[in-house]
Amino acid sequence: MNNSFLDKNQKRFVEELKEFMRIPSVSTLPEKKGEVERAAEWVSSRLQTAGIKNVKTMETRGHPIVYGDWLSAPGKPTVLFYGHYDVQPAEPFELWDYPPFDPCIKNGRIYGRGATDMKANVLLPIIACESWLLETGELPVNVKFLFEGEEEIGSPSLSEFMEQNQTLLASDLAVSADSGQMQEAEPATMVSLRGLAGVQIDVQSAEGDLHSGLYGGAVPNAIQALTNILDSMKRKDGSIAIDGFYEHVEERTKQEREDMNKNYTGGEDFKKSTGVSHIVGEPGYTIAEQTLTRPTLDVNGIWGGFQGMGVKTVIPSTAHAKVTCRLVPNQTPDEVIEKLRNHVGAHTPKEVRAKVIPLAGRAYPYMLPHDHPGLKAVEQAVQAVEKKTPAMLRIGGSIPITGLLQNQLGVHTVQLGFSVFDEGMHAPNEFYRLSQFQKGQKVYVQLLQELNNCLS
Amino acid sequence: MNNSFLDKNQKRFVEELKEFMRIPSVSTLPEKKGEVERAAEWVSSRLQTAGIKNVKTMETRGHPIVYGDWLSAPGKPTVLFYGHYDVQPAEPFELWDYPPFDPCIKNGRIYGRGATDMKANVLLPIIACESWLLETGELPVNVKFLFEGEEEIGSPSLSEFMEQNQTLLASDLAVSADSGQMQEAEPATMVSLRGLAGVQIDVQSAEGDLHSGLYGGAVPNAIQALTNILDSMKRKDGSIAIDGFYEHVEERTKQEREDMNKNYTGGEDFKKSTGVSHIVGEPGYTIAEQTLTRPTLDVNGIWGGFQGMGVKTVIPSTAHAKVTCRLVPNQTPDEVIEKLRNHVGAHTPKEVRAKVIPLAGRAYPYMLPHDHPGLKAVEQAVQAVEKKTPAMLRIGGSIPITGLLQNQLGVHTVQLGFSVFDEGMHAPNEFYRLSQFQKGQKVYVQLLQELNNCLS
Repeated sequence: MNNSFLDKNQKRFVEELKEFMRIPSVSTLPEKKGEVERAAEWVSSRLQTAGIKNVKTMETRGHPIVYGDWLSAPGKPTVLFYGHYDVQPAEPFELWDYPPFDPCIKNGRIYGRGATDMKANVLLPIIACESWLLETGELPVNVKFLFEGEEEIGSPSLSEFMEQNQTLLASDLAVSADSGQMQEAEPATMVSLRGLAGVQIDVQSAEGDLHSGLYGGAVPNAIQALTNILDSMKRKDGSIAIDGFYEHVEERTKQEREDMNKNYTGGEDFKKSTGVSHIVGEPGYTIAEQTLTRPTLDVNGIWGGFQGMGVKTVIPSTAHAKVTCRLVPNQTPDEVIEKLRNHVGAHTPKEVRAKVIPLAGRAYPYMLPHDHPGLKAVEQAVQAVEKKTPAMLRIGGSIPITGLLQNQLGVHTVQLGFSVFDEGMHAPNEFYRLSQFQKGQKVYVQLLQELNNCLS
Repeated sequence: MNNSFLDKNQKRFVEELKEFMRIPSVSTLPEKKGEVERAAEWVSSRLQTAGIKNVKTMETRGHPIVYGDWLSAPGKPTVLFYGHYDVQPAEPFELWDYPPFDPCIKNGRIYGRGATDMKANVLLPIIACESWLLETGELPVNVKFLFEGEEEIGSPSLSEFMEQNQTLLASDLAVSADSGQMQEAEPATMVSLRGLAGVQIDVQSAEGDLHSGLYGGAVPNAIQALTNILDSMKRKDGSIAIDGFYEHVEERTKQEREDMNKNYTGGEDFKKSTGVSHIVGEPGYTIAEQTLTRPTLDVNGIWGGFQGMGVKTVIPSTAHAKVTCRLVPNQTPDEVIEKLRNHVGAHTPKEVRAKVIPLAGRAYPYMLPHDHPGLKAVEQAVQAVEKKTPAMLRIGGSIPITGLLQNQLGVHTVQLGFSVFDEGMHAPNEFYRLSQFQKGQKVYVQLLQELNNCLS
């Protein structure tokens, strides 16, 4: 199929992307519930425009899931396209040079929250299907679409939804567009993802805040107790000191490590892109290994006591922190949460009480078998358009859908998205390259054909 | 002098106290600037009502200082009465059972922010002078009043104000009403106060927050670095690990320690009143010593990263904490700030930058010579009204005025206030006993006479 439809409609697609990005569908903020629903409606309407059938916005306990399908290719394989229409919060607003929810284009880049994660990528499979349907009246395979609105909060409703809709979602392969590549000139597909598990720690010392003039010197301080606990979680060398944390971690083979390190364009670039002065991390592993195949622990937030201007000589009676871990094959979220809980129990100073509350966002780590036919389809589609073989990336992030599809429906997922990892995902000044947007559409058009070739 | 004026006017005084407490003069909150000024005007007007001359509200770089005097007793000593009309923030509001700025009376107690610290005490010397002037037409001594609006933020403008108004403030003795006692039935005067010094620590790791999926495992985390720093400041045994922190600390004599411990009604009460399960603190010292004559270090507040509901898998690039120390004789605020700065410098992980910013609230520790004639005046006034000798209290809190008066004007300060230390100072449900209010007025009436007797 030629790409004349794509070429003719590029302006429209960019306008659509802008419209989509203008909806501040921040899933973690309760006050944005209406906007998240508006984004679901937008996606639903866009699927219908593309000629997808049976489109519906389905309720969950949280934000809705948008489903649609086109199943008029009997005997052909069925492919489930996945994406999410929710975005991260844009705070702190003052760090943005562009309005986060009023996208603008500069030098071929579109700036705004959700640009690279992942509103542009959401449009790729939709546009590809639209192109096939308008040009040929049919698709090379049967397709289903599943777009969720809770990926940025750890997809808490997805497991139950899958449980309840097994037949609706049944398919031969899933394709996730929530993916990307290291460099603009290096197409890539992600073959492994880390998992995620975390807890909130709430420390209480006295019944209420106390005056350091009256009590200072003799009563415990909740913040200091919390810093004891947090400080005990990592060793000075960067390794994680949670008892048994590495117990089930699958070591990569020598060959795998060599391959990974060979493909990684390391050290100095990494410092430059992040602005950190020193790389830290588990001894004995390269940056590539640390960020892709090793488990991690980070304190994501901390708060307690007086945070205003000036001085308040209070001895805080409560303090709080959120801690999350990235997991690798064979760790499970439940196991890691249990280990975190035990560690906090063992390291809480006797003079305070600490509660450990599991956080909602959990994900299993995921690995695609290297000989999976879906991978071949992706390779061939990329090769056809870009004249390059995509890199097989291991990724440090987590996408709950992959583990859930595998565990609950027995469906593997291939990952094909056109984000580049320097595009400020989750950060201020997020952007997406419009050149990648166009390229991505062409590869997805090709992919529909290759999926039929490889899966049939 | 009999107390018929006091008896007749008790209702009015309580109504005045309520009116005064209704003004939310929270000095630390910029948005309350107007209210702080309104409180200054209220005090100024109340002084005039009492018959005090030369009343003026004087500008400073911060909140105004209210001055007034009555100097018509030539040849008699001059006494400077000190107090502050500002209050602590009432947050968190949800922990109050009473409206913090709409005082109510229950069982002989008046509830509201500023009740015990120190709006009721502010009225004591004013009412005492009013009583003398209305009953006798004169005062036994010359008096000056100095009421500031920045005590709760560490009196940052007071030093400069004193410097510029040395003649205006010249006096033989200061009397601070910002004082109290351990038990309702035990009158007391404070003979020593701890000092105060503190810093804010700002840690920065990367240029901006980073995604733990992409970078987790290899980049520093500002919160974790801050917990390293804070955790290094105290030893597990509760002693302070800042290099040289105890270097100049004056040890109390065996006799002083015995006296102090004898008077202290310790352990179990202390746990009950605070709700803490274990007493912590420097080994080898009793609770009395820890809270009164030993220096302390507390983290008063901490913040960084994501503090909202749910999960945000961010690696925070900045984190902040406020740390203050209570000082004892021979420590100075500048010295302690320098030691804190050096400690942070020496314990900052190499992969982050830490800034140390001195906090505005500083106070020198203060001790009144045990043979000072002002102390005798206080003893005799209390003895006359209460038929008891006041306890000589060492106090763990800080009142910058005492050190400043001594260092800048060579004036000693006696402390006489009628707060009881279980009245929720700086905490929710702050209150003051109206029985103490009445008793305090009588003692202050007597004190004016005794000051003339002892200082002449």
